[in-house]
Amino acid sequence: MPNWLVLQLRIEGGDVIRLADVELLGYRHELDMRFATVNRHLSFRDHEGRETTLHSRRFVSMADAHHGGIEWTLVPENWSGRVEVVTAIDGRVSNAGVARYQQLEGRHLSPVGPRTLGPEVIALKTETRQSNLYVSYAARTRVFRGDGSVQVERRLYQMEDYIQQVLGFDVRQGEATRVEKLVTFFTSRDPAVSDTLVKAATSVARHTDFGASFERHAAAWEELWRVCDVRVSGDESVQLLLRLHIGHVLQVCSRNTADLDAGLPARGLNGEAYRGHVFWDELYAFPFFNVRLPEVTRGLLMYRYRRIGEARAAAREEGFRGAMFPWQSGSEGTEETQRVHLNPVSGRWEPDLSRNQRHVNAAIFWNIWQYFQTTHDQAFLRDCGAEMMLDITRFWASIAHFNPERERYEIHGVMGPDEFHEKYPDAPRGGLRNNAYTNVMVAWLCDISGNLLALLPSSRAEELRERLGIGDDELTVWRDMSRRMFVPFHDDGIISQFEGYEDLEELDWDAYRAKYGNIQRLDRILRAEGKDPNRYKATKQADTVMLFFLFRDEELREIFGRLGYGYGLDTVPRNVAYYDRRTSHGSTLSFVTHAGVLAAIDPESSWERFLVALRSDADDIQGGTTKEGIHMGVMAGTLDLVQRSYAGTYISDGVLCFDPRLPSRLDGLSFSMQFRQTPIQVTLTRDQLTLALHAEGGSRSVRVAVRDDVRKLSVGDRTVFELSRNRATTAHSQQFRSSAPD
Amino acid sequence: MPNWLVLQLRIEGGDVIRLADVELLGYRHELDMRFATVNRHLSFRDHEGRETTLHSRRFVSMADAHHGGIEWTLVPENWSGRVEVVTAIDGRVSNAGVARYQQLEGRHLSPVGPRTLGPEVIALKTETRQSNLYVSYAARTRVFRGDGSVQVERRLYQMEDYIQQVLGFDVRQGEATRVEKLVTFFTSRDPAVSDTLVKAATSVARHTDFGASFERHAAAWEELWRVCDVRVSGDESVQLLLRLHIGHVLQVCSRNTADLDAGLPARGLNGEAYRGHVFWDELYAFPFFNVRLPEVTRGLLMYRYRRIGEARAAAREEGFRGAMFPWQSGSEGTEETQRVHLNPVSGRWEPDLSRNQRHVNAAIFWNIWQYFQTTHDQAFLRDCGAEMMLDITRFWASIAHFNPERERYEIHGVMGPDEFHEKYPDAPRGGLRNNAYTNVMVAWLCDISGNLLALLPSSRAEELRERLGIGDDELTVWRDMSRRMFVPFHDDGIISQFEGYEDLEELDWDAYRAKYGNIQRLDRILRAEGKDPNRYKATKQADTVMLFFLFRDEELREIFGRLGYGYGLDTVPRNVAYYDRRTSHGSTLSFVTHAGVLAAIDPESSWERFLVALRSDADDIQGGTTKEGIHMGVMAGTLDLVQRSYAGTYISDGVLCFDPRLPSRLDGLSFSMQFRQTPIQVTLTRDQLTLALHAEGGSRSVRVAVRDDVRKLSVGDRTVFELSRNRATTAHSQQFRSSAPD
Repeated sequence: MPNWLVLQLRIEGGDVIRLADVELLGYRHELDMRFATVNRHLSFRDHEGRETTLHSRRFVSMADAHHGGIEWTLVPENWSGRVEVVTAIDGRVSNAGVARYQQLEGRHLSPVGPRTLGPEVIALKTETRQSNLYVSYAARTRVFRGDGSVQVERRLYQMEDYIQQVLGFDVRQGEATRVEKLVTFFTSRDPAVSDTLVKAATSVARHTDFGASFERHAAAWEELWRVCDVRVSGDESVQLLLRLHIGHVLQVCSRNTADLDAGLPARGLNGEAYRGHVFWDELYAFPFFNVRLPEVTRGLLMYRYRRIGEARAAAREEGFRGAMFPWQSGSEGTEETQRVHLNPVSGRWEPDLSRNQRHVNAAIFWNIWQYFQTTHDQAFLRDCGAEMMLDITRFWASIAHFNPERERYEIHGVMGPDEFHEKYPDAPRGGLRNNAYTNVMVAWLCDISGNLLALLPSSRAEELRERLGIGDDELTVWRDMSRRMFVPFHDDGIISQFEGYEDLEELDWDAYRAKYGNIQRLDRILRAEGKDPNRYKATKQADTVMLFFLFRDEELREIFGRLGYGYGLDTVPRNVAYYDRRTSHGSTLSFVTHAGVLAAIDPESSWERFLVALRSDADDIQGGTTKEGIHMGVMAGTLDLVQRSYAGTYISDGVLCFDPRLPSRLDGLSFSMQFRQTPIQVTLTRDQLTLALHAEGGSRSVRVAVRDDVRKLSVGDRTVFELSRNRATTAHSQQFRSSAPD
Repeated sequence: MPNWLVLQLRIEGGDVIRLADVELLGYRHELDMRFATVNRHLSFRDHEGRETTLHSRRFVSMADAHHGGIEWTLVPENWSGRVEVVTAIDGRVSNAGVARYQQLEGRHLSPVGPRTLGPEVIALKTETRQSNLYVSYAARTRVFRGDGSVQVERRLYQMEDYIQQVLGFDVRQGEATRVEKLVTFFTSRDPAVSDTLVKAATSVARHTDFGASFERHAAAWEELWRVCDVRVSGDESVQLLLRLHIGHVLQVCSRNTADLDAGLPARGLNGEAYRGHVFWDELYAFPFFNVRLPEVTRGLLMYRYRRIGEARAAAREEGFRGAMFPWQSGSEGTEETQRVHLNPVSGRWEPDLSRNQRHVNAAIFWNIWQYFQTTHDQAFLRDCGAEMMLDITRFWASIAHFNPERERYEIHGVMGPDEFHEKYPDAPRGGLRNNAYTNVMVAWLCDISGNLLALLPSSRAEELRERLGIGDDELTVWRDMSRRMFVPFHDDGIISQFEGYEDLEELDWDAYRAKYGNIQRLDRILRAEGKDPNRYKATKQADTVMLFFLFRDEELREIFGRLGYGYGLDTVPRNVAYYDRRTSHGSTLSFVTHAGVLAAIDPESSWERFLVALRSDADDIQGGTTKEGIHMGVMAGTLDLVQRSYAGTYISDGVLCFDPRLPSRLDGLSFSMQFRQTPIQVTLTRDQLTLALHAEGGSRSVRVAVRDDVRKLSVGDRTVFELSRNRATTAHSQQFRSSAPD
């Protein structure tokens, strides 16, 4: 996108003010997260001894998605004279935020041309090189003193990819002069736009002033905070970081983006890492939105739906049926995963087989189902959701095969979320057999899909069956798979991450930690040592453990039961302990997952992981990755932990249930949530859970529960659950500890 | 759009087959409305005596919005030999469908370029001239005989705005050869598209064959018919025409367009009249969609919402507040109403003041409210609907002024729907005082808006009040306006279409009918005679009568009661009779409106008007307007008449009510409808109304009623109302007749 931030100061006869040219007397930079405003306070002295202070604030409007603004307040402290302000729109931008992409083409804009509209408005039109999108920016710059506007001299300078005005005016000692640069931006994907350049220019020409624009922006943010804030008491820094995450997450996804066919890039909109590709980590972000701004989830699921054609083509090309969504999804929904990968430790290019992470297709299914459970959005299920679910199930049924010896369905040639294991040691081809996480997800989703058509209006169910050609035999296979997927186990009953994991070598974790310090990216270390990570019982991030993160104990017991596998009281703690000791947490998401599964069995340890995840971007714990873009999944994941793991929310048979596990470091927490269109205020203290259903538009009665205590809540009701301290999870916790030395 | 239909036949040494060159032995053209398929059956003999039959069918897919196809089946009856088929995409198209627009620029496409993909695919990229939209088409043409494909020689010919392939192959006497041309089309507004040309080409290259594509298309249409069909018994031709209307309406608006930011052009997508502008006649189309495909209405209301910025700017420019949506809305939502108008009777250009039809803003409000009543779509009301309603109300409050003498609010300078009256005779400026239809609508909508914020979640209500700056004083004025809008009446109590209508001259209708025959466009006749239509009690189309079409008697009694005006049992019949005699029905919509209001008071007359509306496009009753595009409002309006006037559906306090008035010419009618997400099967005979709520996904219990008999219907229920023959409306009917000679 063109750079609209260009605003420079020249003082009488001097040069453009750059920090290098002046003596800095004071500088403060604030990010006001309430309104995502960037504020700067600058005080400097030039070589002629003139002291000047400059306060600036800037925002991109949450109220009007096409609008932003910068305001400068300029005070000459010990001088009067003439200044010039350069205000520009610069199309000569290049993406250069990620060091290792520097040698790739960074220029994505072709110039189309500049224009002006009246004396105050400058505008620039560009076109994206690959996708042929027109992008136009327009700016209107005005100067004010007191209540009146200041007459300025304006000079224009323009080229095909750059346009600027130089505003000349007098300033007086001790008097504040305000410069307002208001900007509008439109792309040819925006609705109701004919020529983007004309639209941007006419739109900025008639805009209100900075103050009124900012007020509308602030009002929109205030509503978002009323809907999205998560309040905790007992730890100021946790509160601050949660709000940092909320503020960032909402800058990437909000009602303004819901209607835009914008995906959820893994690194938000703050950086260029992963080139804006969409991965499976939406899964960590959706739960936060599902209960606050479900239209955001809906928009993001629609983003997938609009790309189902490419997913079908991808399945067909690999010899499968249905829809196979890609591991790294590009703008058209095609597979964009690299085939080679630069190892910065060794400096070598190594093959990258990560596209075999077909489990993204189970994640999309899970996301649709969670969204539907939370919102009961029948129209979405009918028009888009069911079709995706059916075609994803069909893909899994076609990649699976029935092994008559085991009398089980198996899936070969895939990877789980753990990216250290791409293939068997020395195997010529990529992929593993029977990743447990994948196979259990498939067993679960086959069960849902077998009964899905009955949830639709009969006319749509018929149409889908006809159009997709779903026969009874196919539905029978799905039901069979829900009962006969193969899940590998170690001899001692531990779920094998994949078939054969048990036979891999144990790694000397302590030795590697001692030698390398941070071994999160153990794969790069091992490869640099000439060793193949595939040989070791070493896992990059939660894989099997994901099951305990996505499903509750009761759900897994049902799934495993249907499959005819044992599922005991110790299944969770034993497996979590086993894999926790063999995981490097090379993805920050892994901390979120482990914090989630440990909430019930080892609250202290859960809280530690939660804090790591919470600080991961604020402290840039991976050493430099934050500036390449925030970690959306982790930011939203920490918010999900509060509601799903600590407040313990889940939905069962249309009832909104709570199984609270307030961390001992907190005194309480509260947030608003929306369940099936009804806003509910949730307040949790150590002893009580209070739910209030305010009397307001859209509310209808809902059923809520703490364990077996189910209550119906009508509009205007408030109910208090007294929480017993004697928790079933205590038993788990002990088991986990006793199994730890195992 | 480029023309993708180009498919021509050359026979050995001959020219391209044109009908002029051959002796036509047989020709049949069918429009199969079930699937909107165009079928042709052609049999011809060339100058060498060779007889050939050619069957073709073509479709634009309802299943895949980017896809269409043509299939030719070719049989040489008495010869064998070689033929060539020319298959092309032609970007050299011009809009020339409306005679009086011929002198306007008809070329809207600039060429970008052609390309091929493999041996079979040709593609062409163009760009729209004004709006900078890229539009690409790609075609894949294959030839088959029996089950196998035929090897063909291919020659390519391309220029920047045209691409064709010539396919040469042998045909044998008596053997059928099939030519399939499958086509895909993408624009740069389509989601998930990078380069439209590449997308179109790769997409058509991997498409299924004609048969499979057609089957999916047919399955999608079959679902639409299950949801949208209206069945009547007793009159075959009425059934046929209703289905013609359903088929046409669904070709303009369907689930495929709901997500597209496509408006509802007054003349559908079939013709160029009104240049695709969007008028108020959405109002006639939405009721059909509200109860069948509410997502279509939602999409069309979103189309308005996305243009609220232009509506606000338009209000500001005229010195008003809030949002003033334009009379003729162009693609950006700006006012596109012409300022002069060519009178084809006189050949003169005359001033056109029709933009003063501000009542379109009341219609949009009514549409939002009807949609919300039918669907209870809280999210839409919260995110878009309420904001439009509030800003429309604010517009009305600012165009109205308080007249202290009358102690009433008045609105001056506007036109009602009747386009014969633009101003007072000899007045220098356009507009009339106190159009009754407008003022009553405003009184009604001010009442709704005064209570609207309470229907929203409190966080959104606060945000809207802050962002729009709605003060308590403003809400007070709205409530006051709902009680004190001025409505003009004649001395004898007839509602005056506008203030002063009573004083206009009566027209000798019989004389004009005798002289001119069809006097629907009486305005043109009068002007050609040098007379000003503004002088006469002559109305082009339902204006005051609209009130009785949009509101039920009970509703109007409440509105008039709140205003302190009398509303008697004879208000409807007297006013309808008065205006019916003074209306030329110069818009076909007027027949719909009068059919609606007469349903209760003069069923025979209602049925006559219904039949006129029903035949208006099939018989092109306005003599040539149909080929300029179908009349969407009339087509959908006839469907609305069946449900709203004859089945008598309405919603009151969240109850779906019926007040059936089965026309005597019908034995019964039945249709499906969706009420607040619940599909209901409605079957009406002379004696019984049967409602069935099938057990299917999304159904929830609803309340239904016939007059005072309210019943709760749960999933799987079926209920029968016995209808009494002794109807309250009989009284009305007698009064109407007795008042007719008045």
